[in-house]
Amino acid sequence: MYTVNELREIIKQELDKKEYMQEPYSLFEPIVYMLEDGGKRLRPMLTLIAYNLYRDDIEKVLKSAIGIEIFHNYTLLHDDVMDDAELRRGRLTVHRKWNTNVAILSGDAAAITAYKCIEHCEDKYLRRAIDFFNQVAMDVCKGQQYDMEFEKREDVTEDEYIHMIYLKTAVLLAGSLRHGALLAGAPEHEYNALYDLGGALGLAFQLQDDYLDVYGDVTEFGKNIGGDIVANKKTYMMIKAFELADAPTKEVLWHWIEKKDFDKDEKVAAVTRIYDRLGVKEYAFAIIDKYLDQSREILERLDVSEERKAYLRDFIDSMGNRKK
Amino acid sequence: MYTVNELREIIKQELDKKEYMQEPYSLFEPIVYMLEDGGKRLRPMLTLIAYNLYRDDIEKVLKSAIGIEIFHNYTLLHDDVMDDAELRRGRLTVHRKWNTNVAILSGDAAAITAYKCIEHCEDKYLRRAIDFFNQVAMDVCKGQQYDMEFEKREDVTEDEYIHMIYLKTAVLLAGSLRHGALLAGAPEHEYNALYDLGGALGLAFQLQDDYLDVYGDVTEFGKNIGGDIVANKKTYMMIKAFELADAPTKEVLWHWIEKKDFDKDEKVAAVTRIYDRLGVKEYAFAIIDKYLDQSREILERLDVSEERKAYLRDFIDSMGNRKK
Repeated sequence: MYTVNELREIIKQELDKKEYMQEPYSLFEPIVYMLEDGGKRLRPMLTLIAYNLYRDDIEKVLKSAIGIEIFHNYTLLHDDVMDDAELRRGRLTVHRKWNTNVAILSGDAAAITAYKCIEHCEDKYLRRAIDFFNQVAMDVCKGQQYDMEFEKREDVTEDEYIHMIYLKTAVLLAGSLRHGALLAGAPEHEYNALYDLGGALGLAFQLQDDYLDVYGDVTEFGKNIGGDIVANKKTYMMIKAFELADAPTKEVLWHWIEKKDFDKDEKVAAVTRIYDRLGVKEYAFAIIDKYLDQSREILERLDVSEERKAYLRDFIDSMGNRKK
Repeated sequence: MYTVNELREIIKQELDKKEYMQEPYSLFEPIVYMLEDGGKRLRPMLTLIAYNLYRDDIEKVLKSAIGIEIFHNYTLLHDDVMDDAELRRGRLTVHRKWNTNVAILSGDAAAITAYKCIEHCEDKYLRRAIDFFNQVAMDVCKGQQYDMEFEKREDVTEDEYIHMIYLKTAVLLAGSLRHGALLAGAPEHEYNALYDLGGALGLAFQLQDDYLDVYGDVTEFGKNIGGDIVANKKTYMMIKAFELADAPTKEVLWHWIEKKDFDKDEKVAAVTRIYDRLGVKEYAFAIIDKYLDQSREILERLDVSEERKAYLRDFIDSMGNRKK
């Protein structure tokens, strides 16, 4: 069994090899840039952890796990163009550091690189590996499409929001676990259970992101607190607030959303006060806990030893306690 | 054996099914838009023709062939964003009809759709089919990268240009033929020969495009003659002209390239006169013929009956005679 820190180091070393680099290097440099800036490596970690539930020779799944990380970074690359984001993990986004064309084309090259990595598996798993990856990749696209459409709508419900973040974020975590279990030779009901576990974990993960944007500690979270509020992002917090608010409170929320000229701190403080008053924090806690519990329940039903389960259980707990 | 027209109709009917459509439809509508506007369907035709060299049950390779057409349209979708092209086959490009974000994301969805289609094959061919497709897809990306880099360079040689169009255009035609032959169970040396045949044919195809832009008939070519000249595109014609020109002629070419304010017809006429004088047309004829002959020679060496070869030979000949 490998600890989470050992797995992270193994992933780092594999990524540092930059085996995907080819001529023209200019096409791959933005991919290196994206991958060298750290990130949590959550997805390849989940692939390795799932594989490690059943088998110890994790080097067999490593290249494939790296493929999922590269795929994730490809989606970030294109998403940053679509959102015209300036910064990613504290550094200039690719389309700001280079330009939009570079971000589009190097993103495309990253996607193909991901497909090349994913196929590193035994022949008997290849069709399912590719099938599953196609499904996950398409779901992520669909999630991004809904996300962009929701920006133009004012009536997005909580259910719609959960569906969107499920596709955009949770499915890739789910697929990462399923991929690891599949390649370890786990039976179908087991890798499907891990997919469900990852889906619940992914929802908890994204909802916690929404929560931390409002109630996180700036020194730990690493982003400015209230960034979503300033940008009028329709997060769980905002959608829940609108659901709970009475007419006058809704008007105050609208006032802040529509105001073009405002002091950022003042806006964040005002909206946070409304969240406080409506108890949005407690709703967020409750729904995050619900999904974390779901993932723990699925874990208990897996047909693996208690010792092996403990690692994934710790991982789920650490997600529940994360501050960044 | 199927005639070229029969194959085109079969491809049309398969595309018309729009089997790739899923919710949210907004994500797939731009793909439908791209695919419904016709085009030559050259790539799926080549896949079916190659398959048909060895086998008659072409319905087995149809979905996969459609995948190559969808992949081709995905590259056009993103290329049009990168070139900020306004029109494609006489209609607004996707990023002009919708917007850039739609073109990026629907392009991404098209790429994944292509991967989903490509895997429609027997298990025994799957790994090679995916491997080959990854290689082709990456080569197309590399070709586009070189193309964009060449735009900023003034010293692109003929060899570099041929290498670029080989990657950007010829490799996909080559891969289309190889894919059909692979899935038909052709031996390795045969599908590799068809790959080489397609590479030569693809070069001839692109070089003829360059030629027709200058010397084509506007009513047949369907684009304005001289479009490349107006846009200062570094085509074979322009690169060859610079190679052949003496110092004063180069200066005239530079004059037209650098002139910001010009009458389009006057510029096209002036540059075409230089091409005429330098004999660029004859060089273009010679190199197109060279590559067409290469593809014919490879065809002769294939281990298939004369009757079956005849169809591909006609196809090569029709490429040599094409006016649009």
